[in-house]
Amino acid sequence: MRVEVLAVGTELLLGQIVDTNSAWLGEQLALAGVDSHFHQGVGDNQARIVLALRAALARSDGVVVCGGLGPTHDDITRQAIAEVMNVALVRDTAIVERIAAMFRSRGRDMPESNNRQADVPVGATPIPQQLGTAPGLICPVGHKVVYALPGVPYELTEMFARGVLPDLRQRAEAAGETPAVIASRVVRTWGMSESGLAEVLAPRIDALDAAGGNPTIAFLASGIEGIKVRITAKAPATAADSAVGMLDAEEAEVRALVGEAVFGVDDDTMETVVAGMLAERGLTLGLAESLTGGLVASRLVGVPGASDWFRGSVVSYASEVKFTVLGLAEGPVVNEPAARAMADAACRVLGADVGLALTGVAGPDSQEGVAPGTVVVGLALPGRPTESLEFHLPGDRERVRQYAAISALDLLRRRMLGAPPATTTR
Amino acid sequence: MRVEVLAVGTELLLGQIVDTNSAWLGEQLALAGVDSHFHQGVGDNQARIVLALRAALARSDGVVVCGGLGPTHDDITRQAIAEVMNVALVRDTAIVERIAAMFRSRGRDMPESNNRQADVPVGATPIPQQLGTAPGLICPVGHKVVYALPGVPYELTEMFARGVLPDLRQRAEAAGETPAVIASRVVRTWGMSESGLAEVLAPRIDALDAAGGNPTIAFLASGIEGIKVRITAKAPATAADSAVGMLDAEEAEVRALVGEAVFGVDDDTMETVVAGMLAERGLTLGLAESLTGGLVASRLVGVPGASDWFRGSVVSYASEVKFTVLGLAEGPVVNEPAARAMADAACRVLGADVGLALTGVAGPDSQEGVAPGTVVVGLALPGRPTESLEFHLPGDRERVRQYAAISALDLLRRRMLGAPPATTTR
Repeated sequence: MRVEVLAVGTELLLGQIVDTNSAWLGEQLALAGVDSHFHQGVGDNQARIVLALRAALARSDGVVVCGGLGPTHDDITRQAIAEVMNVALVRDTAIVERIAAMFRSRGRDMPESNNRQADVPVGATPIPQQLGTAPGLICPVGHKVVYALPGVPYELTEMFARGVLPDLRQRAEAAGETPAVIASRVVRTWGMSESGLAEVLAPRIDALDAAGGNPTIAFLASGIEGIKVRITAKAPATAADSAVGMLDAEEAEVRALVGEAVFGVDDDTMETVVAGMLAERGLTLGLAESLTGGLVASRLVGVPGASDWFRGSVVSYASEVKFTVLGLAEGPVVNEPAARAMADAACRVLGADVGLALTGVAGPDSQEGVAPGTVVVGLALPGRPTESLEFHLPGDRERVRQYAAISALDLLRRRMLGAPPATTTR
Repeated sequence: MRVEVLAVGTELLLGQIVDTNSAWLGEQLALAGVDSHFHQGVGDNQARIVLALRAALARSDGVVVCGGLGPTHDDITRQAIAEVMNVALVRDTAIVERIAAMFRSRGRDMPESNNRQADVPVGATPIPQQLGTAPGLICPVGHKVVYALPGVPYELTEMFARGVLPDLRQRAEAAGETPAVIASRVVRTWGMSESGLAEVLAPRIDALDAAGGNPTIAFLASGIEGIKVRITAKAPATAADSAVGMLDAEEAEVRALVGEAVFGVDDDTMETVVAGMLAERGLTLGLAESLTGGLVASRLVGVPGASDWFRGSVVSYASEVKFTVLGLAEGPVVNEPAARAMADAACRVLGADVGLALTGVAGPDSQEGVAPGTVVVGLALPGRPTESLEFHLPGDRERVRQYAAISALDLLRRRMLGAPPATTTR
């Protein structure tokens, strides 16, 4: 199967938003073993959407169109597909009712314009909407197919997995294809530089190359998400398990070489990993945050079930709050003794087993004579003396805060493993 | 002039990186008054690059190709352009020397493979490289043109401004075009639905259409950033000020129709606007956050100068922290009285003039018999009785928290303006 992506929206051509959907769809198609040779982007113009659809159908077996399914007069993907199919649009009353019910559940009447979202080209199959008001469409064009998905990323991703992928697989099978399975796994690291990681992994990468290049290893430096090591393996669909076996074996090789800098795989984040370790150990956590201003707390509560182990955070942005709420002695608040006192106070004030504290200077100005980018983390863990660690981060205010947050969580993670702190903070 | 963008690179098709170059180039072309009707993306395959170039040249006056100018065997944009021009590639010794000098300045020898970057199609003009090793190319094809730029974003942006834009302007003038200036402004709104906004603005949009479509108005629903109303005006380059005048006049029209739902323009965010209002009024702010877990605080401290007006936040995630630190009476904590008590406590505990509190259920499970998506905001403002507002948000845990955060800030903003709360929360 060969399937292309067509992104619709004048705002994409004008650069008002960056098209992330095409990249996501491209990745999903690749993982499904579907070839994708062209991407197109086109504005909200029916003639040009039709041209782009025809060009795509002329050279591929299918097209995934995203965008242009909204309720306004700009949203004309439905009309363009109907023109390519050479059929009329017919209003589907079941879809109208579904949209109206979504509005009613929010205590509102459905605006007249939303009726347009219920228009379906004759012969097309709607993919029922679940997160937004726009249904998707599966539109046969001869023996080829056009899939239409809403442009809102979280609606698109859900609907692609539920409505498009199964149909694609069916078509591939009907065409007698025995597709290859491409599986990949991302090993996530924090606390090693990209060149350090490259040096450690170089012999392994050379060995894989020499052995035929399956699996492969590639890096991706991802800023505050650390450096990702991607392992990709290919196998015939009839032996899909062997791809997973290759990933398992290669992950073990990478872990053996990289050590504690590996904090997780795939969808693991520093906060889900720390959350799992706290829950496993039956420990509760309290925070005292100054320069990060609640960022560490807000990342942690993103983990479902956080209420089992997360007590809360005292965001002591004004120094006075450190004195009154946290009980610090009046004086300078950006140094190691202050960070340790904050960590102890987080345990005491919030009734937590573990106290993690961050103080520092995000910038752009110095504070107490301390340079921007200076961050001090305090950590109170049961059975260890309360400790502190100072480090210096590059970048602007936002980057300093983001790096400070993940570095503090990484320190907690390493200490729970009984390991030393990372030697590099980026 | 009509010019398209063609992005080259298999990694774009596979979704391993998101194509930000096309959006940036699209914006630059629009600002230069150049129409751009199609974007294309294609892999590192000469036949397909040639196909994409030919398709673009058939319908436009020029193409900006980005990517595929590196030193490796994957980088074949030069070959593809030469094929479209129907000419040979010739190695330019001056470029070879320039690349070699760049390596020497870093104390390294030039690898053999970099010689390929000095290959120029006969008849093309190189754009000298300054930041990377790859020169750009200006390649005439009949009376049309292909520009080739490196895919590294910071090399691309510099080279576009220096080498492509002046050539484009010259061509436009030679074609007898009087270059236009396009200016745009984004009016940012919160608290009206897209369809509600569309209804309110429809007469104005119709009037503009009838008057010749300059300026234009378009919407963009941007999730937790609210709905953006973009005004775009076009004027001859000889009267650039008149475009800004049109924007000013149209912004006033939009504000008159939309009212308090307008919270800012262009780079304003809800937090910078609230920050400015607090600073202007000399008020300090304290927060008590439960379901948002520090998210409101962390957004606010992103505003430089936050220490002038931001005291801190008590992230009282565990109910017990609400009792011990905030002094709430023991009992249910997801209701309006609890939200008001939290707002008062934020003032008292953190020594703040204004107290803003959020409690609720982010999900996925209910709590105290209260359904996920239920959010209660408490607000204590000097000179007003402490108030509370309950609303119901759709979506998953993360969306509920994000919408809760901006809705709470919007309530504070509207109350400081002396206005009623928004009638819709999304």
